[in-house]
Amino acid sequence: MPVSLKDIRWQTHEVFDFAGHYARLGPAVAGGEAPDRAFIDAVLDEAHRFTESELAPLNRSGDEAGCTWNDGAVTTPPGYKEAYATYAAGGWSGLIGDPAYGGQGLPDSLSLLLEDLIGCANPAWGMYPALSRGVINALAAHGSDEQKQTFLPKLLSGEWTGTMCLTEPHAGSDVGLARTRAEPNADGTYAVTGTKIFISAGEHDLADNILHLVLARVPEAPEGTRGISMFVVPKVNLDGARNGVTCGGIEHKMGIHGNATCTMHFENATGHLVGEPNKGMRYMFTMMNAARLVVGLQGVCGAHAASLKALEYAQERLQMRALTGPVAPDKPADPIIVHGDVRRMLLTQRAIAEGGRALVYYAGQVADRLRQGDEADSARADELLDFLTPIVKGGLTELGFESVNHALQIHGGHGYIRETGVEQYVRDMRITLVYEGTTGIQALDLLGRKVLQTQGKGLMHFVGDMAELSEALREHRPALADALDALAKEWGDLTMALGAKAMENLDEVSASAVDYLFYATYAVLAYCWGRMALTAAVQQAAGEGEADFLAGKLAVAEFYFARLLPRRTAHKLAIEAGPGTISAPAASAIAAL
Amino acid sequence: MPVSLKDIRWQTHEVFDFAGHYARLGPAVAGGEAPDRAFIDAVLDEAHRFTESELAPLNRSGDEAGCTWNDGAVTTPPGYKEAYATYAAGGWSGLIGDPAYGGQGLPDSLSLLLEDLIGCANPAWGMYPALSRGVINALAAHGSDEQKQTFLPKLLSGEWTGTMCLTEPHAGSDVGLARTRAEPNADGTYAVTGTKIFISAGEHDLADNILHLVLARVPEAPEGTRGISMFVVPKVNLDGARNGVTCGGIEHKMGIHGNATCTMHFENATGHLVGEPNKGMRYMFTMMNAARLVVGLQGVCGAHAASLKALEYAQERLQMRALTGPVAPDKPADPIIVHGDVRRMLLTQRAIAEGGRALVYYAGQVADRLRQGDEADSARADELLDFLTPIVKGGLTELGFESVNHALQIHGGHGYIRETGVEQYVRDMRITLVYEGTTGIQALDLLGRKVLQTQGKGLMHFVGDMAELSEALREHRPALADALDALAKEWGDLTMALGAKAMENLDEVSASAVDYLFYATYAVLAYCWGRMALTAAVQQAAGEGEADFLAGKLAVAEFYFARLLPRRTAHKLAIEAGPGTISAPAASAIAAL
Repeated sequence: MPVSLKDIRWQTHEVFDFAGHYARLGPAVAGGEAPDRAFIDAVLDEAHRFTESELAPLNRSGDEAGCTWNDGAVTTPPGYKEAYATYAAGGWSGLIGDPAYGGQGLPDSLSLLLEDLIGCANPAWGMYPALSRGVINALAAHGSDEQKQTFLPKLLSGEWTGTMCLTEPHAGSDVGLARTRAEPNADGTYAVTGTKIFISAGEHDLADNILHLVLARVPEAPEGTRGISMFVVPKVNLDGARNGVTCGGIEHKMGIHGNATCTMHFENATGHLVGEPNKGMRYMFTMMNAARLVVGLQGVCGAHAASLKALEYAQERLQMRALTGPVAPDKPADPIIVHGDVRRMLLTQRAIAEGGRALVYYAGQVADRLRQGDEADSARADELLDFLTPIVKGGLTELGFESVNHALQIHGGHGYIRETGVEQYVRDMRITLVYEGTTGIQALDLLGRKVLQTQGKGLMHFVGDMAELSEALREHRPALADALDALAKEWGDLTMALGAKAMENLDEVSASAVDYLFYATYAVLAYCWGRMALTAAVQQAAGEGEADFLAGKLAVAEFYFARLLPRRTAHKLAIEAGPGTISAPAASAIAAL
Repeated sequence: MPVSLKDIRWQTHEVFDFAGHYARLGPAVAGGEAPDRAFIDAVLDEAHRFTESELAPLNRSGDEAGCTWNDGAVTTPPGYKEAYATYAAGGWSGLIGDPAYGGQGLPDSLSLLLEDLIGCANPAWGMYPALSRGVINALAAHGSDEQKQTFLPKLLSGEWTGTMCLTEPHAGSDVGLARTRAEPNADGTYAVTGTKIFISAGEHDLADNILHLVLARVPEAPEGTRGISMFVVPKVNLDGARNGVTCGGIEHKMGIHGNATCTMHFENATGHLVGEPNKGMRYMFTMMNAARLVVGLQGVCGAHAASLKALEYAQERLQMRALTGPVAPDKPADPIIVHGDVRRMLLTQRAIAEGGRALVYYAGQVADRLRQGDEADSARADELLDFLTPIVKGGLTELGFESVNHALQIHGGHGYIRETGVEQYVRDMRITLVYEGTTGIQALDLLGRKVLQTQGKGLMHFVGDMAELSEALREHRPALADALDALAKEWGDLTMALGAKAMENLDEVSASAVDYLFYATYAVLAYCWGRMALTAAVQQAAGEGEADFLAGKLAVAEFYFARLLPRRTAHKLAIEAGPGTISAPAASAIAAL
């Protein structure tokens, strides 16, 4: 079924007032103009037309066909190449880039709207342009002028695509173990040699050239992450000759079959150092942080697309009568949307999908402020975004996976077979919990680096926004305002107590990080549903908007606070139980089976 | 990696004392003998040899090859047919059947040990014999003497296999909507006509004949489930002629590719009425209840096999240092089993897999008592088993799915690719939450039928067992004894309060059933871990057993009580929040997207 624009549009305009936000920000880049509501609507409509007509039809067929590897060349599923050509021709690849290099100069958050629609329509296809965007960001931030002039126009026009080459067989989460070497050449370039695995979009037939951002070690680099440098390694060199880069094979995976996951061999490949040697990890984080927001958004997209499918099915499928008596007595059975547990799952899906979307849009607006506004505002945005990023990536992918599983469950046996396309959501979404840093890595980043190491700076900014919301909400939904206030206090107390214990025992951090991540995710989603409830209540009171849509939003918000937010308590209790039962047992005892 | 017998053996002998249990029960069937410890060990060893040598090697290849359909014939993956022949030749298909019809007369619970090993080695293959077992049970309980004499020897020898034909395109959870008709023939048989879908093992090349147990309506049957009759419909009639049964196709599914999921067309097929007309649903439940225990066991098996794989990987894979300092300073990084979150996942997997196994074995012993002992004991067993069945099926499959997902997560990107085989667990296990009644159906069965309608009879029996355990545990692990006592009280209070509210408003049941199921599952697993902790503590104190193994068991038990049991609180809070936010919203508002 087509992905409806309704929620995206409502959140963009009514909840987050993107146009007002852009007007307050000022131009995103020199020469850019703040997009107004009409402009944003035009982008949404155009993007929606593109994703529904070009990408959605390839979602299932791409899963069935997958990518094929033949002697180093990778063929993407039928239609992928043509869809990519349409995408590039439509100017989508340069939507937010610097006009000096051919971009359209629009603010970063506008790209999230495009990526939202792409992710709902075809997540496997979406990875090709998403990787390019990451390379654009990294080069824009850390590349030399010459590199920008050489590479950015090709990426922004979509003629070339990009990749991130971090992982090696023995170096996954632990990037510091990477062994790929880079030896200086006489002409200032480097000769890069090594093998990278799990490289998304590493080789394909969509574009003439592929720019690999490769992490490698220069001679005498320090050990670990402090000795990692970043290089641009093109598939085809600037003189038109093939570089020493080959694709050794592609992975057969659980899902995202349309995306080529490649093993890449670099053999004396010409590489261009980005920035300074041994600072590659820092540069990579520029790219990775943006990518993490996009992966969190993928979780949202899967949840949303699957929830639309489940809603449609739940209204059509007739099975059994409501426990309280027939609802559709003229039919052989009631539509399953009458059953309490089906409703619970549908409401849960919506709570995750739309709450997650709100979180990503909120984070996107924070990100816009990074390079804007005054210094204090920019520093606050930086700290807040740092804090939100692992929640978006870790929390929304975990809950997104839950949500697509509810869609399968609502479909019953029909959900498990390939025909209905629901099981594909489950397979496709499963990767989002892994790539760009697993949930465990996000959780350590959140609790260790973003909360404890900063003395909770980002958290305090966020709690400030919560307090502001609660004040605004008090007039319209006092119970939700009270719940937010209590939550903010509880969260602060939990964090303080955990922080104090962690000073004594670092096991507190590693044993409780994921529970803390889930706690934070539920808390942040409460804020998001509070914001949506506020908007919906105000619109409802003013007689604006579509009645059913607003009633639905308020219903999901009430459901979230009553039935999902209590989940945080389980995580709180687990954290408070301490790390002993996790850290104390000998590995030999845990493994004695 | 090979599935170790260690936990199965320990639970069988030390925790549940199967030999003592059999000795107390007396012979399972006339002429049978109570199996002693040596006999049980021989069965375990032989079964393990069979599953490891014949089934485990086909798990991955069967997933890759899948079943193929050609003009009504289904070919199973290479090796399946040979493995089945070895299984039948080994006498496994008649392990627990009545000796009067060629069975070996062993107690029902012994079959769980065999099914445990099969499920760990190859769940897709295991469905063929599991379906036969269901048909054997149904015919043994409800078939005529002639039907037993005709069909049981063929099933018990493994020459023929069986199926359960319930689902129709418009009738899934709502079996009462089935339209398949059965018209009486002059010779006392019936002409069965209709289409059944999602029929596991509906057609295949393992056996000469397939007996379909088909639910259909005789002329003038009442509407709904009260008008359902059960028929045996052989693929090949007793005179050797093909019956009017054809396989119209097989489903392409997310997992269990080795199992043929068939669309079956019956066209004037000769059917033999089982028992009386219009009582088919009751007979089907005989079959389904046993099948639900086996499906719960599949969840356990997946969790166990995946946890062994994850444990192996976590000890080998080197990534990063423990937060508290290097554990393996001689290596480039520490094995990931040192990291708190990896430990949390490994311990969770073990808690689910081994706790789930204990629950299935406990339930199996209760089932043994059904047809044994005195009347009061048998009635108690009946009520207790009724209560446990939806928890085993619904709870252990949900948690089993969680567990296999942890295995994937521990493997990171390596878990998402097909090569390591971990993602197959996730795909294969996903069906267990759906077939034989979804989680939602199990939850309604538990809360509505098994708890509220019986005024909590089964629950009270179970709480009685909990109290007995707590008393025994007090000497060895007083904290766990206290926790069990508190839990029993809390569970009773929660149930009483919910029951009182449900009398006023049935929405309480449908909105809270799944949360209640989860609550019950965590509570029951606490009992199971209490039992294992008691055994381990006693053995440890006596200097018996393997030190690391017992330390591991005690560690997982402590972990379970400290870090997983708190999850029940989230479900309790959700239940206590009431059904309003689920039942009140208009369907049009929920669907307004």
